[in-house]
Amino acid sequence: MKKVFFLLFALLALCPAIGFAEEAPISELSFVLNTFSFLIMGILVMWMAAGFGMLEAGLVRSKNVATICLKNISLFGIAGILFYLSGYNLMYAGVDGGFMGSFGLWAADDSAALAGDFSGGYSAASDWFFQMVFCGAACSIVSGCVAERIRLWPFLLFCAILCGLIYPIQGSWGWGGGWLSEMGFADYAGSTIVHSVGGWAALSGAIILGARKGKYGKGGRINPMPGSNIPLATLGTFILWMGWYGFNGGSVLALGDAASAIEMSNVIANTNLAACGGMIAAMAMVQILYKKVDVTMGLNGALAGLVSITAGPATPSLGAAVLIGAVGGVLVVLAVPMFDKLKIDDVVGALSVHLVCGIWGTMAVPFTDGEASFVTQLIGVAATAVYVLIASSVVWLILKYTIGIRVSEEDEYRGLDLSEIGMEAYPDFQTIHMGGSGSGYATGGLSEASSAARMVTKPVKQN
Amino acid sequence: MKKVFFLLFALLALCPAIGFAEEAPISELSFVLNTFSFLIMGILVMWMAAGFGMLEAGLVRSKNVATICLKNISLFGIAGILFYLSGYNLMYAGVDGGFMGSFGLWAADDSAALAGDFSGGYSAASDWFFQMVFCGAACSIVSGCVAERIRLWPFLLFCAILCGLIYPIQGSWGWGGGWLSEMGFADYAGSTIVHSVGGWAALSGAIILGARKGKYGKGGRINPMPGSNIPLATLGTFILWMGWYGFNGGSVLALGDAASAIEMSNVIANTNLAACGGMIAAMAMVQILYKKVDVTMGLNGALAGLVSITAGPATPSLGAAVLIGAVGGVLVVLAVPMFDKLKIDDVVGALSVHLVCGIWGTMAVPFTDGEASFVTQLIGVAATAVYVLIASSVVWLILKYTIGIRVSEEDEYRGLDLSEIGMEAYPDFQTIHMGGSGSGYATGGLSEASSAARMVTKPVKQN
Amino acid sequence: MKKVFFLLFALLALCPAIGFAEEAPISELSFVLNTFSFLIMGILVMWMAAGFGMLEAGLVRSKNVATICLKNISLFGIAGILFYLSGYNLMYAGVDGGFMGSFGLWAADDSAALAGDFSGGYSAASDWFFQMVFCGAACSIVSGCVAERIRLWPFLLFCAILCGLIYPIQGSWGWGGGWLSEMGFADYAGSTIVHSVGGWAALSGAIILGARKGKYGKGGRINPMPGSNIPLATLGTFILWMGWYGFNGGSVLALGDAASAIEMSNVIANTNLAACGGMIAAMAMVQILYKKVDVTMGLNGALAGLVSITAGPATPSLGAAVLIGAVGGVLVVLAVPMFDKLKIDDVVGALSVHLVCGIWGTMAVPFTDGEASFVTQLIGVAATAVYVLIASSVVWLILKYTIGIRVSEEDEYRGLDLSEIGMEAYPDFQTIHMGGSGSGYATGGLSEASSAARMVTKPVKQN
Repeated sequence: MKKVFFLLFALLALCPAIGFAEEAPISELSFVLNTFSFLIMGILVMWMAAGFGMLEAGLVRSKNVATICLKNISLFGIAGILFYLSGYNLMYAGVDGGFMGSFGLWAADDSAALAGDFSGGYSAASDWFFQMVFCGAACSIVSGCVAERIRLWPFLLFCAILCGLIYPIQGSWGWGGGWLSEMGFADYAGSTIVHSVGGWAALSGAIILGARKGKYGKGGRINPMPGSNIPLATLGTFILWMGWYGFNGGSVLALGDAASAIEMSNVIANTNLAACGGMIAAMAMVQILYKKVDVTMGLNGALAGLVSITAGPATPSLGAAVLIGAVGGVLVVLAVPMFDKLKIDDVVGALSVHLVCGIWGTMAVPFTDGEASFVTQLIGVAATAVYVLIASSVVWLILKYTIGIRVSEEDEYRGLDLSEIGMEAYPDFQTIHMGGSGSGYATGGLSEASSAARMVTKPVKQN
Repeated sequence: MKKVFFLLFALLALCPAIGFAEEAPISELSFVLNTFSFLIMGILVMWMAAGFGMLEAGLVRSKNVATICLKNISLFGIAGILFYLSGYNLMYAGVDGGFMGSFGLWAADDSAALAGDFSGGYSAASDWFFQMVFCGAACSIVSGCVAERIRLWPFLLFCAILCGLIYPIQGSWGWGGGWLSEMGFADYAGSTIVHSVGGWAALSGAIILGARKGKYGKGGRINPMPGSNIPLATLGTFILWMGWYGFNGGSVLALGDAASAIEMSNVIANTNLAACGGMIAAMAMVQILYKKVDVTMGLNGALAGLVSITAGPATPSLGAAVLIGAVGGVLVVLAVPMFDKLKIDDVVGALSVHLVCGIWGTMAVPFTDGEASFVTQLIGVAATAVYVLIASSVVWLILKYTIGIRVSEEDEYRGLDLSEIGMEAYPDFQTIHMGGSGSGYATGGLSEASSAARMVTKPVKQN
Repeated sequence: MKKVFFLLFALLALCPAIGFAEEAPISELSFVLNTFSFLIMGILVMWMAAGFGMLEAGLVRSKNVATICLKNISLFGIAGILFYLSGYNLMYAGVDGGFMGSFGLWAADDSAALAGDFSGGYSAASDWFFQMVFCGAACSIVSGCVAERIRLWPFLLFCAILCGLIYPIQGSWGWGGGWLSEMGFADYAGSTIVHSVGGWAALSGAIILGARKGKYGKGGRINPMPGSNIPLATLGTFILWMGWYGFNGGSVLALGDAASAIEMSNVIANTNLAACGGMIAAMAMVQILYKKVDVTMGLNGALAGLVSITAGPATPSLGAAVLIGAVGGVLVVLAVPMFDKLKIDDVVGALSVHLVCGIWGTMAVPFTDGEASFVTQLIGVAATAVYVLIASSVVWLILKYTIGIRVSEEDEYRGLDLSEIGMEAYPDFQTIHMGGSGSGYATGGLSEASSAARMVTKPVKQN
């Protein structure tokens, strides 16, 4: 049973007065509108891949920018192919309350609709497309966390396994009609199923890979490694914010009746206000704690709000959406230094945004959705954590001890663009070689101590 | 009475032959389409916030880029929250031919539609979302004009008051069913109600704040201060152009019948051609006047065309749309040096684009729309000018004499990124410290005299 | 006869079981949905103009970036005006199996639909808008190929002639109901009609203009001239990928019935997978040939896949779409050095992507579409080649021997931004003056020999 049916049933239960339901459950034009919604909202979610790309390109150092660009666009290519080869069917074909679907290439079957039976609700490929772009988003989350020291091809291999196996299997539990959905686990657009899955995979990767050289100094010193291009990071955040309207709004999974259109409107308004709440809360928090606002914390605050509302964007009032987002914004400001204290080196703050707020958002659903229970939500969060952490760690470790996942120390120092890509991101510009230090996040922005570590270099080969 | 009803009535009056009107004024699927149009077009208008952000990030000097990025994204967050807290109801709730609506939190009420009565036309939250993003656009206009010397938090405070009070009150006059709409004031998508409102608020801010240090030298000398990233400014313009299809196209406020869809198509085609006309006219004008084209004038010419058509995009022929835009393009080329002569320092040309062309576009409506009158248009323009100038000036002055609105001279010299944000936009890059000079506009591009004022600096702390 | 009718007939032939066809061919809401599809998909195609702009701004050297930005946005303005002045009617008005339509301004006529007759299928202006943005795309292809040495105004003049005459005349053959469509030439969204037309126009321009100074050295040496901003090029590729969903998806030319919505879904899924296939194949190919991946080859591989699927995105299975794209990805890796060996200097690889893969995509249609024939496809490709090459060459040569098309050698060395625009793209940044060498493509990325040719310069005037 797909996510859509669950929601359609829920909607029908809520709105018994809709007259059309008696005569024709789904008319041809409702079928068209459901399909078009999947396509347009899916295009917005695809656009988030660009958002992650720009955010990460802005938050890594200039010597690693071309590599992170290539990773972000090629992981989306891999997601598309793997979700066709095995992902979709593993997630949705014959799950039946169980733990996974079946293996096999996906192929569209619209014969019923073409014969005039529109009860399927939407075209097959529109559904495939919409689900595929969500899979890509999970990969993008990993990319930013393990940046600046992972090798290109091993990373892409991990993405292939994440998209083709790890993500769809857990996805089948909640969205494919598996055991979690039978329990009543509520995760509307994927605070857990997409965001914290990406977060757990990233966490295991960051631990197994280790921190960037020079990030953590003696005596607990944390060296900031500020991002090289703030406008790009801002653009990436704007793109993600925009794409999130499709991420959550499209997850109504229908548009062919007034109740769905109303729900989509509420979801989009709530999604927007959670982002507002997260951003303003994070900015205020940073101002209070550090006496100065930090751009990247503002950006991550907005993203934190978006992740936080994603598990339940249909039920809160606008005011509750602001609060849910604001808590996310506060959490991200606290989580970034926490991960640094644990010496888990997360280049763009992906764990703080997607993992921490993914958990928070999932646990917050019962506050506004009477049908959700805290216990079931916790079971879903915990099961996902255990499964993804173990599965990802196995894959990372196999990759580590076979082909290797980390660039050499010298290559890390020179930058991945020279070692992995053979091409600089900004060859015409004189860049300042960063002597191996700190995060693009709060700590980076707020400390000026890092300046001394920078050296002005003009190596003929590099520049 | 909302804008939508006025337009729907106008459409119905124009198209008496449409058969469906008799049986069922608004069917369920028409309701869905109206709602979906608000959402999709609203998402495009939200995207304009990113466009303003990139345009401004490209047109300020590198030392102020991170700050302008944060301002642009956080003002959109503030717009969302304030339009929920007070803006929407002040603009639309119970205006009844008067001067403002009522105070109070906004909340969605779709009970009628959920009970099968679709006469409301669209979902509540889709309308709220669409109106909210327009409010954000007004703020974005202010941001660029007062850039490079205003402090972050006072600016955001001004935005909150603009979104929560100033904008919605004047908006109620024309769009909320207030006194201006009763007079027949025609402003389809907001040449006056959005763009010149932003322009007047920016003008009062620019005057009260004063020019950037070094912008205006002795003997009337105007020092160019060229923008630091032309591709970003170009990207911003492309984004704005794209978003404007939603800004004007969505302002049909309906999609559920053929007449609305036809009107939306005409609006989008006219919007596009006005941008074309504005851009080509501005480029030709600059070529003739200065013997060389100027990129930023081309960009501003396109925006000028877009602002100019916004008051009346449904009635002109395509040829008239080109002309209306072209006049805007010429006006912007004349207005930029005019403001400089008046020593009103407008960093990105926002006054020339949004204020001057906002007035022009509003006054041009009667040329193609027989129902509009020049006198009424003038009354609307003048009333908006007086109200917004006074209200904004009061707010700016209170902020100035309480918390202060301008950074210190030393901070302005070092750049706002270090003083306000504690983070550089491009920390890996060697930048050239601009010794305090000129505009990102025509004068900047066309004069090479400024070069001498630039110093190559590599301060360890800054770079 | 417009493209839409051909396709609608084909669809109806394929799906005889659709019940609605008997009673009411096109209902009012189908008319609305067809229209809305043109508008939304057209907006996505317009967005591709920004994608080309960012791709090209990222792949030229920093001294030519502002100029390429202005070219890309102003060519879109010119396309809009010329497609109104003559293009649309030349392409679609009264072609009747012949070689061109008629001259004359285009104007919308929706009187039938406004009178309740929806058999036209969609609003006039939505169709105009959708066709116009395709015309803009053809121009954008030329822009990148002839960059870094062509003068601004002559280039824009060529664009005007391409949009107003050359493109619409050949477009009438296949899409306007001309002789090629009568023969059964199949080019769904324009592998030939848009992409290879742009390619042939670019090829003639590149040959007549000549290579950039220093690009081809003694003894067959090819000097790499790497692009200055890889994140911008990546962003451009993401934008193009996104816009392509509209380019191909909108070319269903209908959305008002289930069969069209199903076809649109299949088209979008296939379009996506062809991009995936092209990107991964190009990356693998470069890794095998050169032992290192090249970012720009990955980007161009994705674009190659997109161009390849464009002629026939509705008929392949997902697997076939991957393969069609993958062949395109391989072709682009082989074509880039081939053009360099021929000393045809193509700054961004436009010929390899749009011309080579445009031909491949057109010839690949019969593999999956039983109604297409290889002979007819070949006739279409050849006729387009002969016509566009001759027509473009005549225009380029007239421009060359009258007003001149190439900047002076000194201006080329200083960069077009100073000579043509009087404004630098990155005035705050210290850039490295490239002493006249190489391509932004594979050869650039893979050779490190170019480094020696670079000089670190800090001329007071330039930087």
